[in-house]
Amino acid sequence: MTGNSLDQHLQRYAQRTTGMRASAIRALFSVANRPEVVSLAGGMPFLNSLPLEALAVDAAQLVGEEGLVALQYGSGQGILRLREQICQVMSLEGIDAHPDDVVVTVGSQMALDLTTRIFIDPGEVILAEAPSYVGALSTFSSYQASVVHVAMDDGGLIPEALVAAIAAVQASGRRIKLLYTIPNYHNPAGVTMAAERRPVVAQICRDAGILVLEDNPYGLLGFDDKVHRALRADDADNVIYLGSFSKTFAPGLRVGWVLAPHAVREKLVLANEAATLNPPVFNQMMISRYLETYDWQSQIKAYQHTYAERRDTMLAALQQMMPAGTTWTHPTGGFYVWVTLPEGFDTAAMLPRAVTNRIAYVPGNAFYADGLGSRQMRLSFCFPTPERIVEGVRRLSDVIDAELDVMRTFGAHSPRPVGGPRSPSNDTL
Amino acid sequence: MTGNSLDQHLQRYAQRTTGMRASAIRALFSVANRPEVVSLAGGMPFLNSLPLEALAVDAAQLVGEEGLVALQYGSGQGILRLREQICQVMSLEGIDAHPDDVVVTVGSQMALDLTTRIFIDPGEVILAEAPSYVGALSTFSSYQASVVHVAMDDGGLIPEALVAAIAAVQASGRRIKLLYTIPNYHNPAGVTMAAERRPVVAQICRDAGILVLEDNPYGLLGFDDKVHRALRADDADNVIYLGSFSKTFAPGLRVGWVLAPHAVREKLVLANEAATLNPPVFNQMMISRYLETYDWQSQIKAYQHTYAERRDTMLAALQQMMPAGTTWTHPTGGFYVWVTLPEGFDTAAMLPRAVTNRIAYVPGNAFYADGLGSRQMRLSFCFPTPERIVEGVRRLSDVIDAELDVMRTFGAHSPRPVGGPRSPSNDTL
Repeated sequence: MTGNSLDQHLQRYAQRTTGMRASAIRALFSVANRPEVVSLAGGMPFLNSLPLEALAVDAAQLVGEEGLVALQYGSGQGILRLREQICQVMSLEGIDAHPDDVVVTVGSQMALDLTTRIFIDPGEVILAEAPSYVGALSTFSSYQASVVHVAMDDGGLIPEALVAAIAAVQASGRRIKLLYTIPNYHNPAGVTMAAERRPVVAQICRDAGILVLEDNPYGLLGFDDKVHRALRADDADNVIYLGSFSKTFAPGLRVGWVLAPHAVREKLVLANEAATLNPPVFNQMMISRYLETYDWQSQIKAYQHTYAERRDTMLAALQQMMPAGTTWTHPTGGFYVWVTLPEGFDTAAMLPRAVTNRIAYVPGNAFYADGLGSRQMRLSFCFPTPERIVEGVRRLSDVIDAELDVMRTFGAHSPRPVGGPRSPSNDTL
Repeated sequence: MTGNSLDQHLQRYAQRTTGMRASAIRALFSVANRPEVVSLAGGMPFLNSLPLEALAVDAAQLVGEEGLVALQYGSGQGILRLREQICQVMSLEGIDAHPDDVVVTVGSQMALDLTTRIFIDPGEVILAEAPSYVGALSTFSSYQASVVHVAMDDGGLIPEALVAAIAAVQASGRRIKLLYTIPNYHNPAGVTMAAERRPVVAQICRDAGILVLEDNPYGLLGFDDKVHRALRADDADNVIYLGSFSKTFAPGLRVGWVLAPHAVREKLVLANEAATLNPPVFNQMMISRYLETYDWQSQIKAYQHTYAERRDTMLAALQQMMPAGTTWTHPTGGFYVWVTLPEGFDTAAMLPRAVTNRIAYVPGNAFYADGLGSRQMRLSFCFPTPERIVEGVRRLSDVIDAELDVMRTFGAHSPRPVGGPRSPSNDTL
């Protein structure tokens, strides 16, 4: 956000406010709502397979029979029954946790906010994958953290790059507080941290006195019947784990959680109270009832099936239509494919032309705190139908082809650095 | 929160975290839940008059027919229809606002948090009434604000005291960013800012370059068919207004809002997104439907009637049972009576004995950032039935009488300073 001379309050803002910028997510939510645009931008889950009629009965019972509790103030930590169920959900990833160490939050975004709030003083460093989740970068920025990216490849975060980044930051005299990582079906990169790297990454952080912030919204949405073991499963003292029902159930209730070492959990509850008093009680009871009453693991399988089909469709369309020199990742779960265009492209500059051609994506630089990612873009396969995905990739390839024509005629933009996973190339698909 | 030597993360917290303390609110939520205790502590609204069966039908329709929207991600500013309705609600208080300047938040607590976040750098001063809302003090503290209290009397904030406080803080070289005020049926003081003082207070703040943060959760809960004109109604540029459905409808959905000058509103949306992505969509649609479908002003009248009766009961019981030298305020709306005990009392020290006697209140010092209020307490008349209120005041008077006996025998605690409104005394009731 640049200074607005019409804002008479400009001299009054806190220093942290200068770091708040309009997020690519917000701008693209509005684009995505125009029906003529095929949006491969937003990360909205496809909710059509939810048992809405049955859930309607649940909602009615909750209000009608338990309304005096569901509509009342509640606990700043969240209701106990839900925290117990959250521990059951996390046990699928090898986590053995106590409900007392879980704090329910307004989506896992709020958990990100509270964790940043209690740990980060202005200027302190958070390590994050290159690229990283745009919403986390916004939160970190709003607390004046300094984000240092660490390279990934198809096996996720590269331990050697992590060691090098830690050394470089420490040599500069700055303090590193957290490593923020999305180990499974990464947003936006679409890659997963290899099993053998996980204990190595955890050990590197322990040795360096850096807490691991493990963000795992997509962990149960793998396409190969496999659930990856959480970093938290093998390190209860040095990992803070963030979870969410937004992708495995639905985001509109905004229920997420944080699992933290006990003393940290205490601080998180205080911060949660200062921020919201308590997360909405009705919403927690609704999720709790859903987990109690439904075969929620079958619902997750339905989501997996839907998203796997769409992933296949997107990868096939990319293979068929993208020009030579374009590469992309091959996610085994989650919502996203990370695409790298040939040299000379600038995906942020191209976006208005893409939207004119009724196709939207998120430009790569949104996922970097340091301006990298200009040749890259995130494509989501979660929400649009397979037909729309094919049509979207077709429109995108038209836009790219037109750019290529212009570049052949007038020359390319000057080359820029590229970050994040780029292999395998499409000819090795 | 004192340092915990068992917390291996103690050296890792941000500086702001040292200012986070377990709030009196939280401790008392758990006390209030024990049925044998008469709690005059919590500020829980009495929800029994809500049309729960009809609301159950609404909730079912919302999930069953609009679930794909209600359970999906939404806008960081909140849904437009609700923002329009919020403007209608505020018009009752003389406010003429545009829906584009409203931001929906997770309760007005989140609006407090976001406003503090965008304006306050560590060490900057927020002026607040003496006493002030404990939840606001927690939020301010979590952003390392320095709170300076300004005296009140039965007519609310005293303009001369405000001028003096501003001069004193400015003389000390510190910067004042906000005046935080609850003009109507103050929490905890139970007083209302006199109509003739409102423009004076607003003008003083404008002249001093201080934004007014007007917190008005109880404004529509007056007992005399009167709605006080909001400070915001006469000053759109220098007042940020906070509103809530927690008291006029129900708190369990956590829906509040902030109305701000346009440029500030933009920053608040960015901060809202960094904190939660968006407030829960289902909850917003539920409130919107309620405002659309129900005679919500009649529901508010039902609340007014309930609370007025309980206020009468509490004041009569205090008059009948409190020892000489005890004074209290006479609220014309809202939830709270502010009681000042005779010299020598320490309400925080007395609380464990009160709870043993199955009566709970909030000690006065919870409502001060500076340790005042030791002879005072907040009593809530909103939740307990009239019978329980009488029983509660009886138990409280027993506890106080026992303390008096001890004091007569062994001498009083050393006298401490007292803050906040103390008149009229009970003999002028």
